[in-house]
Amino acid sequence: MATERLVVIGGDAAGMSAASQARRLKGPDELDIVAFERGHFSSYSACGIPYWVGGDVADRDDLIARTPKEHRAHGIDLRTRTEITEIDVAGRRVRALDLESGETYWTDFDKLVIATGARPVRPALPGIDAPGVHGVQTLDDGQALLRTLDRVPAGRRRAVVVGAGYIGVEMAEAMLKHGFEVTVLNRGEQPMATLDPDMGRLVHEAMDGLGITTVNRAEVTAVHTGPEGRVEAVVAGGTRYPADVVVLGIGVTPETTLARAVGLPLGPHGGLLTDLSMRVVGHENIWAGGDCVEVLDLVAGRTRHIALGTHANKHGQVIGANVAGGYGTFPGVVGTAVSKVCDLEIARTGLREKDARSVGLRYVTATIESTGRAGYYPGAQPMTVKMIAEYRTGRLLGVQIVGREGAAKRVDVAAVALTAGMTVDQMTALDLGYAPPFSPVWDPVLVAARKTVKALRRAGTA
Amino acid sequence: MATERLVVIGGDAAGMSAASQARRLKGPDELDIVAFERGHFSSYSACGIPYWVGGDVADRDDLIARTPKEHRAHGIDLRTRTEITEIDVAGRRVRALDLESGETYWTDFDKLVIATGARPVRPALPGIDAPGVHGVQTLDDGQALLRTLDRVPAGRRRAVVVGAGYIGVEMAEAMLKHGFEVTVLNRGEQPMATLDPDMGRLVHEAMDGLGITTVNRAEVTAVHTGPEGRVEAVVAGGTRYPADVVVLGIGVTPETTLARAVGLPLGPHGGLLTDLSMRVVGHENIWAGGDCVEVLDLVAGRTRHIALGTHANKHGQVIGANVAGGYGTFPGVVGTAVSKVCDLEIARTGLREKDARSVGLRYVTATIESTGRAGYYPGAQPMTVKMIAEYRTGRLLGVQIVGREGAAKRVDVAAVALTAGMTVDQMTALDLGYAPPFSPVWDPVLVAARKTVKALRRAGTA
Repeated sequence: MATERLVVIGGDAAGMSAASQARRLKGPDELDIVAFERGHFSSYSACGIPYWVGGDVADRDDLIARTPKEHRAHGIDLRTRTEITEIDVAGRRVRALDLESGETYWTDFDKLVIATGARPVRPALPGIDAPGVHGVQTLDDGQALLRTLDRVPAGRRRAVVVGAGYIGVEMAEAMLKHGFEVTVLNRGEQPMATLDPDMGRLVHEAMDGLGITTVNRAEVTAVHTGPEGRVEAVVAGGTRYPADVVVLGIGVTPETTLARAVGLPLGPHGGLLTDLSMRVVGHENIWAGGDCVEVLDLVAGRTRHIALGTHANKHGQVIGANVAGGYGTFPGVVGTAVSKVCDLEIARTGLREKDARSVGLRYVTATIESTGRAGYYPGAQPMTVKMIAEYRTGRLLGVQIVGREGAAKRVDVAAVALTAGMTVDQMTALDLGYAPPFSPVWDPVLVAARKTVKALRRAGTA
Repeated sequence: MATERLVVIGGDAAGMSAASQARRLKGPDELDIVAFERGHFSSYSACGIPYWVGGDVADRDDLIARTPKEHRAHGIDLRTRTEITEIDVAGRRVRALDLESGETYWTDFDKLVIATGARPVRPALPGIDAPGVHGVQTLDDGQALLRTLDRVPAGRRRAVVVGAGYIGVEMAEAMLKHGFEVTVLNRGEQPMATLDPDMGRLVHEAMDGLGITTVNRAEVTAVHTGPEGRVEAVVAGGTRYPADVVVLGIGVTPETTLARAVGLPLGPHGGLLTDLSMRVVGHENIWAGGDCVEVLDLVAGRTRHIALGTHANKHGQVIGANVAGGYGTFPGVVGTAVSKVCDLEIARTGLREKDARSVGLRYVTATIESTGRAGYYPGAQPMTVKMIAEYRTGRLLGVQIVGREGAAKRVDVAAVALTAGMTVDQMTALDLGYAPPFSPVWDPVLVAARKTVKALRRAGTA
């Protein structure tokens, strides 16, 4: 039997999970695996970068799950600092550019995995590429940011974070830990636009309490640089915010330049479209996964783009099984995300109000306040839970939680309930773990479900 | 319209939740509510008693959600220190004994709620009622135990805890906090018989590490008393364990003496049998809830007895709605329970191996070790997850978790999955919250699900 060749473009979570899983199922005599990675590193946790920059994680290498050397020892021909510049779909080959030597060459494939990830959004503004302005997408970005932080002299150190999503608030915390005065410039109505504004307001208040200045509805219009060309200030809404360092946490967009060039199918968010086996729609021998694809939102019934390591890893597993003759599917997501800023925990799953409206769903909402432990148990901390349910059917549509200890991972209960298509009435009977150190006798999620049932009843339904 | 009378027997969680919910739906002009409670207190958290005894909760009254006075202010005629000694089902009346005055009287009812709770198991041994031997079922019990602890002189203070279930391990922690040397006498193979022995062993090891001596397969045969009649030692398996105080945490049995006397239907565990509306089977006007009833185990397909405040509160809500002309059902439980001993968290839901065998289910198991946070994130602590799935169908049957921070409430994911009848294969795709401070990129529950899928495959199924 001839040896097949699998080519993987992208050496992070999705690509290398796929390669590793394929290698587990098929040995080198059956499957030749060549993986290309533009950067220096492989299989690292991009989600961990804010905690490394903030000093919680001491060493960059702690974020690396498997080095290129380790992948090679597992029989994967991983070529770092090598960029794929072209896919020849009909000819079944890719063109590689060795970034060190400048040499280019073609490599044939029988099966191709595209895992090109996402690239950070950078507004086209003068000064946006000045020294002192940093993204935090890659380990190289993190290293560069740490070097900048080191060179800012002690005294009054000012950081401006552009964007108030997950990365923005996590980086605000990291800058705080470095002793900076932190201003977050947020384009939206409230920070954490992945929450409804009423819940985002709670995050805003908590950030105020931490000494982080958050400016809402602030569109950045210019980046000012000093005599040496380094960043000096950011201008938003006519106000000038002095900055010794600027961190961009504006979000990411699928990196699908290669795919677009050869007409592979892209969705409304610019990500590759795949079937349930993560095969690119219409292409028998090409798979795609991770931050460069769109995923099916099981609640909204349409695709979304979500850049998150946990999905990328699942995609990789599924792809690896399928390319190696096994079987796996990725059914979709419900949109779960958790984060924190200092000790404030933030979580969401399912649809926000505006998501529900945009797909034609009518809904009711309820918001409750409770605590993570029994009220009388020491350390009981407040949390706010907002729940959204479909009008008439009472089906759960989404949950948002903002609170302290124990708030974030409580959203998992709702994530499973969403996956199962439960109604909020069914949820009121859920047998969740109860003991005073872990929950009030009515878990906050159950309290929210009960109040949502009442809201449905008031709305003349349920 | 004539005013109906609702009589409630039992003034704790189930009874008073039912009374309060009924009162919310119907005013005093429509519904007269009389509740009888044998003790001094109402609506208190029995689950909180170990933490009050241990000193985490400063004040007994913190455990009381609503006092008798508050209930009365809400239009409920709650009569404490009054015991119901007889139910006249045909005559629709109950006979009350005022424990203070000794007076007895009959009270008529249109609707009756039985919420008589559970009573602790006390082996019939000489000395078992000696001063210094304590149950921890009621607030009065807790108060008596605290008085005993106060009178034991400083120096070498020795406590023996009989039973190594939830109450046993929680009380072991409480005694440790009072500076006692603690010995736990456990009849079973390992502590926490609500877990499989392989998981109970982890609890045993952790208790060893805390300095708690656990003796397994130790059947208590005698309680020795000293010259003043106070407890002096416990004998088990031929060994004499000196004790300044003995705490009984052997478990509870449904308190159904009244119900049994009038032939109300009882199940195999001695608890009252109800329908889905919590109405006693065969009786139009009698409801029952809380620790005196059996509940349907949705996984095993038969009834169990589980004394837990969270179920009692749900029963009360359902009963209150139904007696007041509303609508509610309690579909059953999946057997979720969480607990801790110091910083060790213990959780279970669904069936243990022996439960599965006893209802004729064939299964596979998988056990994994992971951490509650990303491995590189500071404070990441180990946890062990065991998962049980049905042979052929791959349906989740149960999960047990032993670990540190973040271990216990992770079981809720499995509780919802069990309720929804998910397979472990479906669980591998669950969209659970991921961020380094809260979870590894593969949540421990997902890792366990993946390994269980592999076990199914090896077993020639799935």
